[in-house]
Amino acid sequence: MAGLLIKNALIVPMDDCSRAEDWFKGDVAIEGSLIKEVGESLQEKYPSFTVLNGQDSLVMPGFINCHTHAAMTMLRGYADDLPLMTWLEEMIWPREAHLDREDIYWGTQLAILEMIKSGTTTFADMYFYMDETAQAVLESGIRASLSRGMVGSGATAELALEESVEFIQTWQGQGEGRITCMFGPHAPYTCPPAYLERVMALADDWGVGIHIHLAETVDEVAKITKQEGLRPVELMDSIGLFQGRHVLAAHCVHLSEKEIEILAKNKVGIAHNPESNMKLASGIAPISQLLEKGAFVGLGTDGAASNNNLDMLEEMRTCALLHKVAAMDPTVLPAKQVLRMATKGGAKVLGLEHVGSLAVGEKADLLIFDLKKPHLTPLYNPLANLVYAAQSSDLKTVIIDGKIVMQERQVLTMDEERILFEAEKRGQDLIHKK
Amino acid sequence: MAGLLIKNALIVPMDDCSRAEDWFKGDVAIEGSLIKEVGESLQEKYPSFTVLNGQDSLVMPGFINCHTHAAMTMLRGYADDLPLMTWLEEMIWPREAHLDREDIYWGTQLAILEMIKSGTTTFADMYFYMDETAQAVLESGIRASLSRGMVGSGATAELALEESVEFIQTWQGQGEGRITCMFGPHAPYTCPPAYLERVMALADDWGVGIHIHLAETVDEVAKITKQEGLRPVELMDSIGLFQGRHVLAAHCVHLSEKEIEILAKNKVGIAHNPESNMKLASGIAPISQLLEKGAFVGLGTDGAASNNNLDMLEEMRTCALLHKVAAMDPTVLPAKQVLRMATKGGAKVLGLEHVGSLAVGEKADLLIFDLKKPHLTPLYNPLANLVYAAQSSDLKTVIIDGKIVMQERQVLTMDEERILFEAEKRGQDLIHKK
Repeated sequence: MAGLLIKNALIVPMDDCSRAEDWFKGDVAIEGSLIKEVGESLQEKYPSFTVLNGQDSLVMPGFINCHTHAAMTMLRGYADDLPLMTWLEEMIWPREAHLDREDIYWGTQLAILEMIKSGTTTFADMYFYMDETAQAVLESGIRASLSRGMVGSGATAELALEESVEFIQTWQGQGEGRITCMFGPHAPYTCPPAYLERVMALADDWGVGIHIHLAETVDEVAKITKQEGLRPVELMDSIGLFQGRHVLAAHCVHLSEKEIEILAKNKVGIAHNPESNMKLASGIAPISQLLEKGAFVGLGTDGAASNNNLDMLEEMRTCALLHKVAAMDPTVLPAKQVLRMATKGGAKVLGLEHVGSLAVGEKADLLIFDLKKPHLTPLYNPLANLVYAAQSSDLKTVIIDGKIVMQERQVLTMDEERILFEAEKRGQDLIHKK
Repeated sequence: MAGLLIKNALIVPMDDCSRAEDWFKGDVAIEGSLIKEVGESLQEKYPSFTVLNGQDSLVMPGFINCHTHAAMTMLRGYADDLPLMTWLEEMIWPREAHLDREDIYWGTQLAILEMIKSGTTTFADMYFYMDETAQAVLESGIRASLSRGMVGSGATAELALEESVEFIQTWQGQGEGRITCMFGPHAPYTCPPAYLERVMALADDWGVGIHIHLAETVDEVAKITKQEGLRPVELMDSIGLFQGRHVLAAHCVHLSEKEIEILAKNKVGIAHNPESNMKLASGIAPISQLLEKGAFVGLGTDGAASNNNLDMLEEMRTCALLHKVAAMDPTVLPAKQVLRMATKGGAKVLGLEHVGSLAVGEKADLLIFDLKKPHLTPLYNPLANLVYAAQSSDLKTVIIDGKIVMQERQVLTMDEERILFEAEKRGQDLIHKK
C-alpha cells in the first residue's frame, strides 16, 4: 500500500517515549491512516511513497479542540461585550431558536473549514441537529467526538434521551472510525441528578462517555450549592458520574481544593476554554493546580459566539499568558506543556487513544507549518515559536487519518466559496428573523 | 496631483466627528500623503485617481504600536518561561551586549517587515544604535517615534545625553516627517531624579517628548518607594516630569488610586502592553480605571523577546479579553474602545496629530483587509470581527503616508527574503557567541 513521506522537516513529535529531544530534523512515513515510521533518511526504505518536501517546514500532530459548538459560527460577532444574561437570554437563545437543520449543516461546515485551516484535526462538539454536524464531519474528513446536547427537564427531556441513543446508534464509528459519540447532558443546572443517573446508565449500556458543562460560572456554583447542598463537582461525584466511565467536563473554572482532587483522582477529562472564559468574564480556571495534581487537561475554543474564532494556536498563546499573570509567575505553563494540552493531552481528555502525537502506530493526523515567516524568525526554539509567535496562516498542509485534507491552504474536501456564501446568506436571514 | 481611490469598501473610520455610524460602505480618496475625502461615489469627482477595488474589503486606519524595542526580534524565542531576573540577567542582557550595529539594522528590518505585514503603520521604539533603527524606518516607509535608550548612572550616562541630542538633531522630521524623536530615559530605577531633570531640560530645549518605562513591576515599586519614599509615578510627578511636556510612559501596571489620577490629570501617554505584562508575569494594568478617569491609553507589543510577536490584532484581542476577566465584567473594554486604543488613542499617546483615523486631512496611513475568510464569516459587526476574530494574514494592503507599502501581502519597500536570511544567520551567530 503506497503512502506519504514528509522529508527533511523539523519534527515536533509531542511523544516523550521515543526520543530525548523535543524536536529534530527528519522524515515521517505515513501508510494508510497510520504513522508508519519517524526517523532519518526514510526515502530509501519507502521508495514508492509520495514525497512531500519538508524543507523549511515544521511537522507536528494536529490540534485537538476539546470543546466547541461548531454551528455557533452562525452567531459569530452577533452579540459581544454584553452582560452574560443579556447575551444569553436576549441575544443568543432567541437566535438559536430560529436555527434550522440546514443552518446547522452550513454553520458546521464553516466551523470545520475554519478549524482545518487553523490546524484542528479533532474536535469535541455538543449542539443540536447533530446528524447535520456528523454529516459535515463525514464529508470534510475531520475527526470528531459528537454529543447531542440534552436538557433534563421540560418537554424535550425524554426526546433528548431517545435522540441521543439514536444518534449514537447511527454514527458511532462512522467515517472509518473518525466519528465517535458521547452523551451530552448540558450541565448540572439544566439536568437534575435523577436525569443524569439515567444518562449514566445509557452511557454504560452503549459503552460511550459523557460530555457535560461543569462549574463554568459563579452563578452556577451558587445555584447548585443552594439547591443541593454540594458544589457542582461534588454533586457530580456524589451521584457517581466519574466512576467507571469516561467524562469530558467543559470549563471547570470555579473549583474548591476538594473538587480539584476529585477531578484529578478520577481522571476526568477537563476542557479548558481560556478565551471564552475571559470574554464572558466567567473567571480563570485553576489550570496549574489541576496539572500539578495530575488532572487531564486539554484546550478548547468553546463556540464562536464567545471567542470569536476557533483558532487553537491563539488559544494556546492565551492560555500560557493568562496563567502566568494569574499566578504572577512566568514559569507557569511553559510552551511545551501548553502544546501537550493542545495535542496528546487533548486526546486523553476526549478518551481517544492513538491520536495526538507522532508516535509510530498513531493515527496520521498532522500539520505542516511554513517556517519562512518574519514572525517565526529567528528560529531558536520551535516550541516557543509555535505557542508565542505562530499564526494559523503559517500552516500549509493538514493530514487527517492519513489523507491530505489541506494543501497550500486549500481545503481539498470542502467547497470554501459555497460555504462562505451559504453561511453569510443564512446568517443575515437568521439575525433578521422575527 | 494624482492620488489613490479605494472604492466600494466597508469603511471603519475610527473618527467620531464625521458620522454617527461606526462603519459604512463607501470610498476613500487619498491625495499626496493625506486623506482627501471619505464618502460615497467619489470616482466621478477624482477621475484621475488610481482605483483600488474595495469589494469584500474593510478599510481602517493603521495600527499604532506605542511601545516596542524593534531589534529585539533578534531574541525572539531565545528565552521563555523563565523567572524574570534569570531571563534578564542570564539570558537577555548577555546577548544584548553582543548586538552590533548591523544586528540592530537587520533586527529592526525584520521587526518592521513583521509590523507592516500585521498592520502597524506607526511604532514607538526605544533601544540603542538608533541611527540603524532610523535608517530602517526611512527605507521601509513606516512611521516611527524613536528614542535612544538612556541609563542615567554609570559610564555611559553622559554619552547617552550627548548621543540622544545628536540623534534628535539628525533625525527629527526625516522621511517627510515620518520620523519623530523623543528622549528615552529608561526608567526611574535606572535614571536618578537629578539625571531625569537634565533630560527634561534638554527635551524642552529640543521641543520633543520623553519616552520612559514606568511602574512595570512590583519590584520597581518596592525599590523606588524604599529609596525615595514615593511610588514611581508620584516620584516622577514630584520632579515635574509630567508638567508642560509630552510623556510616553510604558507599562504603568502597578498604580495607586492617586497615581491613576496623576496620569489622567496630566494627560500622560500610557502604552499598555498586555501580552508582555502577562508573559513576564508583571501584572495586570488598571486600564479600565485609567480610561474611566480620562487617561490617554494606547496599545503596545513591547519587544519580541517578551511577546513574542509584534501583532497588534493579537494585542487588541488579548487586551479586551484580559480586562473582562480581570474585572469579572464582560462589558469592560468593548471592541470599539480597544480599536480606538490601537489607532487614534495610540496617536494621542505618542503625541502625534493627524494620524490614527480616516478623517479628512489626516495622514493617509491605512489598512485594507480581505473580508472573505471563514473566521470573518458571517459579517454582522466589523468591529467585533476585527478585535475578536481577525488575523494579520487577513490584511491585503497597507498604505503609509499616502504610499502603498504592502500589496497582496508583498511589502514593496523591503527585501523579505534577504531580511529573513540576514536575521536568521545573525541570530544563530548571536546566540552562540562566547
